[in-house]
Amino acid sequence: MSQIPVRIGLLGCGNVGAELLKLLTRDSELIHSQTGERFVVTAVAVRDLNRPRPDYVDRELLTDRPEDVVASSDVDIVVEVMGGISPTRELIEKALLSGKTVVTANKALLAVVGAELTQIANSVGRDIFFEAAVAGGIPLIRSLRVSLAGERVRRIAGIVNGTTNFILSAMSDSDLSYEDALALAMEAGYAEADPSADVEGDDARAKAAILATVAFGRLVRFEDVYREGITKITSMDIDFAKRHGFEIKLLAICEVLDQPGDSSQKIAVRVHPSLVPKDHPLALVRDSFNAVFVTGEAVGELMFYGRGAGGLPTASAVLGDVIDAAHNLRYGVTERQLDREPAHLVSIHEMENRFYIAVDVVDKPGVLAGVASLFGENNVSIRSMEQLDMNEEARLVFITHMAPESAINATLEGIRSLDSVRRVAGFIRVFDPS
Amino acid sequence: MSQIPVRIGLLGCGNVGAELLKLLTRDSELIHSQTGERFVVTAVAVRDLNRPRPDYVDRELLTDRPEDVVASSDVDIVVEVMGGISPTRELIEKALLSGKTVVTANKALLAVVGAELTQIANSVGRDIFFEAAVAGGIPLIRSLRVSLAGERVRRIAGIVNGTTNFILSAMSDSDLSYEDALALAMEAGYAEADPSADVEGDDARAKAAILATVAFGRLVRFEDVYREGITKITSMDIDFAKRHGFEIKLLAICEVLDQPGDSSQKIAVRVHPSLVPKDHPLALVRDSFNAVFVTGEAVGELMFYGRGAGGLPTASAVLGDVIDAAHNLRYGVTERQLDREPAHLVSIHEMENRFYIAVDVVDKPGVLAGVASLFGENNVSIRSMEQLDMNEEARLVFITHMAPESAINATLEGIRSLDSVRRVAGFIRVFDPS
Repeated sequence: MSQIPVRIGLLGCGNVGAELLKLLTRDSELIHSQTGERFVVTAVAVRDLNRPRPDYVDRELLTDRPEDVVASSDVDIVVEVMGGISPTRELIEKALLSGKTVVTANKALLAVVGAELTQIANSVGRDIFFEAAVAGGIPLIRSLRVSLAGERVRRIAGIVNGTTNFILSAMSDSDLSYEDALALAMEAGYAEADPSADVEGDDARAKAAILATVAFGRLVRFEDVYREGITKITSMDIDFAKRHGFEIKLLAICEVLDQPGDSSQKIAVRVHPSLVPKDHPLALVRDSFNAVFVTGEAVGELMFYGRGAGGLPTASAVLGDVIDAAHNLRYGVTERQLDREPAHLVSIHEMENRFYIAVDVVDKPGVLAGVASLFGENNVSIRSMEQLDMNEEARLVFITHMAPESAINATLEGIRSLDSVRRVAGFIRVFDPS
Repeated sequence: MSQIPVRIGLLGCGNVGAELLKLLTRDSELIHSQTGERFVVTAVAVRDLNRPRPDYVDRELLTDRPEDVVASSDVDIVVEVMGGISPTRELIEKALLSGKTVVTANKALLAVVGAELTQIANSVGRDIFFEAAVAGGIPLIRSLRVSLAGERVRRIAGIVNGTTNFILSAMSDSDLSYEDALALAMEAGYAEADPSADVEGDDARAKAAILATVAFGRLVRFEDVYREGITKITSMDIDFAKRHGFEIKLLAICEVLDQPGDSSQKIAVRVHPSLVPKDHPLALVRDSFNAVFVTGEAVGELMFYGRGAGGLPTASAVLGDVIDAAHNLRYGVTERQLDREPAHLVSIHEMENRFYIAVDVVDKPGVLAGVASLFGENNVSIRSMEQLDMNEEARLVFITHMAPESAINATLEGIRSLDSVRRVAGFIRVFDPS
């Protein structure tokens, strides 16, 4: 095989970028023997030239002009690990337009303008790879794009945010409050100083949009994804869930809602906390691990499990893309990058779910009947109910059968308007594993 | 994209072949919209032309001359799902030599002559794909070959045989004997009339050889793989394991034994029952599911889980390969098919493990001391010990610390020679998850 090295220009040299440089240097012989490829990094764009760097970062390659890297005639593959939307978008566009292949780990960017970037890549006959954008080191995107390209995927349900899984696992396994678990996640380096993108669900939302687009072949964008975060989950919710055989997980769920044979491809994509039966593989995912469950008509149930974040696992995914990109460049071919028509999306308000609902009430005769009758009036059937004493109050906890979201909203509105009701203290959807 | 359909010649039309025909027919529009490819099946080689077939099998395509299919100028991709070693090997060789791409699900063949077939494919510039040969529908081979091509894989440990996992799960979950669990597996269609290839471990052995070759880039063949089956596992072994926090699983383990930095790549590949800590993801795999745990230096821990067998999941994996093959054919490129040098293999006799050992003895004073002293004499340190009463006998159950296999063999030999010992009733290695 040819020994002409493939030239890499790196945008960003934080955690992921530095680990990638280390792998490319330390493992260059392994990579060559396994793939026949040699790589050379010709430029590294950073914000601050003077910041201290590990020794495997060659300071001579550093530049604070990323626009030079994407335009350079000394670069074949632009690897973008700087993050952000602007100027990252413009840099990636320029890279593609000047004939570079792009490898990016930027989920937020892809979820917003992935379609535009793909279109540019198609128009110039170049590839854009993004394995590292979803579920870190887990080879999920390539599996969906290539191995399962002919599969009729019905659903993807996954834990795609390590921070929230760490927090929920700590609440469940160590009986911590949400606040204490969040503090622990920060201490352990799993949560950022401003954790809102993780705990409010926007990180998972971007990943859900990308997964749905890849799996269903229809364009789904960030703003198309319904999302609720985990900030309202309490220890009492977790306790109740555990006693009834559930774990609470923040799931990204992408699903086709048509009946088999119906070709209209109605798609729903959402991120919200979910009660997952404790014997389901997703319930067993602990710590900051990610896991994605894929259900296909032919393949049945698949699960992919691994490290969803962290410098090294993410760099490993970027490296896989870089090697694939080099193979395509060498042979002058590209991946299948089909233009995606917008998906026919179903809003969460049109869906049906099972629900866990906790209501704190004044502890007086007749209160339960008042609350329960509201479920009946809205045609919501109750699967199980439990009353817990809490000093002067009582907590009524319901799990419903399948019910339309609209009926549940009407029920909750009615419940909130009752004098005897102090608050709706818990509201979580129940994951249906079938 | 071009509309010229890619022509498929099928060798074999059993369960997998028929399901593939169904997918290619029923999902042709989906496949086209997702991949840009169209497929047409031009010939189907079967043993018996008169056997009844499902209606989606076009009888006009049937032939009982597979040698015509591999030589046909009307075939681009030969899909081999007929199984067996001969004449399958010769047919695949002829297919490659006459310029066809080959997709095969034949693990037994690949484990024995995969290197020779790869060499022929390389020499003629054609691909041979085999995703379906290991772990059925799970996209494992492509993940290892492409996504993890640059990864320093340290270990693969997996449940790659669904029949034995079904039997062991039934023994553990429903307290069945081995014989009853095997009968149940036969009834459920998970075990064949002659189950020996599954229960003796040879099916897993072939898959281990393929996985090691792909993951480590060195040739490992069927006969290089140490194997023990599950036929000697008893309910008492399972009970003890459960009480001590383990599940017993038949694991295929492929690992690099060098210290990091040592480039000699000493590899050990083995299949044997293992005590797996019950909180490890592999311990939780039930029914006939497969799961493969991959540990890489950069990516950390990954697990792939899904249906390892069955017509539809296997056909799904074959379809993924067919689509990938079509992409390569269209662009005139091939996968990286590197010639593999033979691996530097370490025999199981040179390894260290932890062991579970059960010894049935006459229930008399001094017997425990006699048995225990043999461990000491052979420098095997005991981690835990339990004595169980069984009428006139007693069972001594030991779990050792890490010890060389040679020391354990010497210990067992000594134990067997004691007058007070009736039998060594259990001997299982303990899986080290770290």
